[in-house]
Amino acid sequence: MKIRRSNRLVDMTRYLLEHPRSLVSLKFFGERYDSAKSSISEDLGIVKHAFQTWGQGRLETIPGASGGAVLTPFFSEENAQAAINTLVEKVNDDSRLLPGGYVYLSDLIGQPETLRQIGKLIATQYVETDVDVIMTVETKGIPIAQSVAMYMNKPFVIVRNSSHITEGPTVSVNYVSGSVQRIKKMELSRRTLSSGANVLVVDDFMKGGGTITGMKSLIKEFDANLVGITVFAEGHPVNSQRLVDNCTSLIKVETMDGPEKKIHAQAGNFMENVFSKKMGN
Amino acid sequence: MKIRRSNRLVDMTRYLLEHPRSLVSLKFFGERYDSAKSSISEDLGIVKHAFQTWGQGRLETIPGASGGAVLTPFFSEENAQAAINTLVEKVNDDSRLLPGGYVYLSDLIGQPETLRQIGKLIATQYVETDVDVIMTVETKGIPIAQSVAMYMNKPFVIVRNSSHITEGPTVSVNYVSGSVQRIKKMELSRRTLSSGANVLVVDDFMKGGGTITGMKSLIKEFDANLVGITVFAEGHPVNSQRLVDNCTSLIKVETMDGPEKKIHAQAGNFMENVFSKKMGN
Repeated sequence: MKIRRSNRLVDMTRYLLEHPRSLVSLKFFGERYDSAKSSISEDLGIVKHAFQTWGQGRLETIPGASGGAVLTPFFSEENAQAAINTLVEKVNDDSRLLPGGYVYLSDLIGQPETLRQIGKLIATQYVETDVDVIMTVETKGIPIAQSVAMYMNKPFVIVRNSSHITEGPTVSVNYVSGSVQRIKKMELSRRTLSSGANVLVVDDFMKGGGTITGMKSLIKEFDANLVGITVFAEGHPVNSQRLVDNCTSLIKVETMDGPEKKIHAQAGNFMENVFSKKMGN
Repeated sequence: MKIRRSNRLVDMTRYLLEHPRSLVSLKFFGERYDSAKSSISEDLGIVKHAFQTWGQGRLETIPGASGGAVLTPFFSEENAQAAINTLVEKVNDDSRLLPGGYVYLSDLIGQPETLRQIGKLIATQYVETDVDVIMTVETKGIPIAQSVAMYMNKPFVIVRNSSHITEGPTVSVNYVSGSVQRIKKMELSRRTLSSGANVLVVDDFMKGGGTITGMKSLIKEFDANLVGITVFAEGHPVNSQRLVDNCTSLIKVETMDGPEKKIHAQAGNFMENVFSKKMGN
């Protein structure tokens, strides 16, 4: 049964969104819709135009017999700015302040809408980067890593704080946890990371940068390559000492835990790191 | 600038997929595409038809001035069966067997493709259920909960094994961990769950059912309602004793940890629980 263009476009958009950054062949679509490759090519031109128009990513088409299309979802600068503003607004709420200057963010990290924005923002930053795997540390980094993984279509691995039978053989490193100045241990299942892999590190929150430094050592132990570090929120480092530079943050949070409990969230360095570079500044 | 139907269909599909199970108004689409409501209504008819044709969900249209459309993604029976078969095949690999009869699944739980299938399967089961929040326990339940949350567009909450400053006030319960027969403690941030909420419990693996029993007590402590339990994989209970019934599993795994290391994965009770009910059997 031949499928009409309008119906093809709907299913094709859904299919491409569920297989981002992968080559989907003209042949596959041709068979799925019982349509000529020339019609499929025209369809793909429409999909490409629509993603461009609304600043939601790009569709590259590869011509030839083994050709096809690759959809790379990302935000235009305007959409990215809007997403950052929404995140800042959500965090700017004094009731999020916890004793000791900590910030309650667990609700946001469980909201699909927020996770889609975070995922698409971070995927936007690494559109031109060859990433093999996304790494994070349990627990609250996981939703961030997964949201990025879904848009980049790459696996994510979870570094754990203690040994677990179900991980099989592991590699571990020690690191200094900045917030408590204590030596801690983190470990990763041997099977999850290959040597030479390009690793993107993400996390929910960075204060001193201790856990990120730990992940950097772990990447070295696996003979893998660190290609980027991005966190959802960046806080005040303890003693103004930060162990990690070249980390990108979507938002920055300052807290005043005195008699006047105040939280001040603002945009992190994401926009300047991502879009001023792209402009070649 | 008026937008052509073909372009509208692509963006509309993307938008609806990123806002599943939510009412998107005709007015919103009309303004976004500078098009008459009658044209938008026709577009929605096409989207509806396409999702139906490929067994990917349903689009309900609500007529009237305050009307709009709600996209509910789910698998047709045929697509669900294919997804289950793929999962079974991925797990059926003797190299996944770990000492003590444990099964290595961490790689699958970090693969976007696998997580999309798991998420859409579980969302399919609860298409007609009023779910307010999805609950899981750290660590490996998190990717499962998030994948379901993305398709259901509902928040997920993470039950933790120990206290964390960044969770604010918590409620805790004790439970018996089946696999080690030890009393353990789990806790959930006070703010994340409201009394009366309808809670769907998901997890990566169930053996004895100890952690799920713990989550059930926690739900009681919050005066919330348990509306369903689904796990990715179900294993042999220790001493053939299982604490939880009416749990749905996507796959079932049996292991033989003798001299002959063998793993045997097969479909769980998902298909019979979900589709035979729907047929009214």
